[in-house]
Amino acid sequence: MTEHAFSDPERQAVYRAIAERRDMRHFIPGAVPDETLARLLMAAHQAPSVGLMQPWQFIRISNPALRQQLHALVEQERQRTAEALGERRDEFMRLKVEGIRECGELLVVALPAHREKHVFGRRTLPEMDLASASCAIQNLWLAARAEGLGMGWVSMFDPDALGQLLQIPSGGKAIAILCLGHVSAFYKKPMLEQEGWIQGRPLADFIHHNTWKDQDQ
Amino acid sequence: MTEHAFSDPERQAVYRAIAERRDMRHFIPGAVPDETLARLLMAAHQAPSVGLMQPWQFIRISNPALRQQLHALVEQERQRTAEALGERRDEFMRLKVEGIRECGELLVVALPAHREKHVFGRRTLPEMDLASASCAIQNLWLAARAEGLGMGWVSMFDPDALGQLLQIPSGGKAIAILCLGHVSAFYKKPMLEQEGWIQGRPLADFIHHNTWKDQDQ
Repeated sequence: MTEHAFSDPERQAVYRAIAERRDMRHFIPGAVPDETLARLLMAAHQAPSVGLMQPWQFIRISNPALRQQLHALVEQERQRTAEALGERRDEFMRLKVEGIRECGELLVVALPAHREKHVFGRRTLPEMDLASASCAIQNLWLAARAEGLGMGWVSMFDPDALGQLLQIPSGGKAIAILCLGHVSAFYKKPMLEQEGWIQGRPLADFIHHNTWKDQDQ
Repeated sequence: MTEHAFSDPERQAVYRAIAERRDMRHFIPGAVPDETLARLLMAAHQAPSVGLMQPWQFIRISNPALRQQLHALVEQERQRTAEALGERRDEFMRLKVEGIRECGELLVVALPAHREKHVFGRRTLPEMDLASASCAIQNLWLAARAEGLGMGWVSMFDPDALGQLLQIPSGGKAIAILCLGHVSAFYKKPMLEQEGWIQGRPLADFIHHNTWKDQDQ
């Protein structure tokens, strides 16, 4: 413990949010209050960013017709993904992969245009903009869990088509459709595990010492 | 508030971690206890991942010679970044951009090989593996803050050179050097703001409604 450590109950709360956050696809009706949404967006905005470039843009979708169009885009990609999966096609099609029509609040997150001017920390790894934006989304996710709200990150869409639909400027790129809202319950474990699609591997499989050589992948 | 919401003190603790987390470059001596590191890595491992692919590998650097070599790699890229920055070169060179030699614990995070087999949620956005790994790093970052430890994400390196140094298999890719350790104080605001390098913009600049058109970004 260091002098800067949070109190025990505070530490436990942080670990609780991390442990109980789930990628939600099942929502129940109910709006997200504006002041709650404002807190969640501020949590996202407090994320670290490479060279402090703040490479995130949040598009709040309130137009019902637009929500429907977003759903159609995702449905199209869901079909294509199913085809690409081959023998697991039917099994995949039984999974619920999004809650776009049911969630109380729908957000799209996009990387901004003109990112090439940001060289700091990105000269060899330009994708650090996406890394920063992902940290922002994870902040939002954890804060939502603490507020008792579920969130799902949907990445099953054609980013060009979504960009066109939302008038994202050239050079910008949609990276997430976030479904946010009330849930009847949080999954006890990742939904893909619950549904028997895949089982997660234990942490020990992901730890190396000094070099990678002792691991099979 | 929903029935699933955390208690007020718990919610505040989550927001506190989000608000007080900093990208640290200044460390003081002191080891990170093994049990603390284990908790931090477990926090990372509890991150969401696209299709539950868990696209993260953690390489713990305990070999002092290797630490030195990592530092040399970053120093090389720091010089190249300075050149690329042109007129802000000298100002940039005065910034502290890493704490590799001083931090108590040094980790490298890499994306694994054979990622192409994971199609779920990645057919059109293959970079979602990096997005998931970034969420894992953000979990680690927030947990470290709650433990009173600082962390810095260094992305100033040539990923191929680092991969060679750590024997990362072909297809794998280093995305982060994480400096973790004790700090005398957390920056009050992002260090790049404190140093006058750049000022962050307010959240309002990053919010759009239904389409992007009203923003100059």
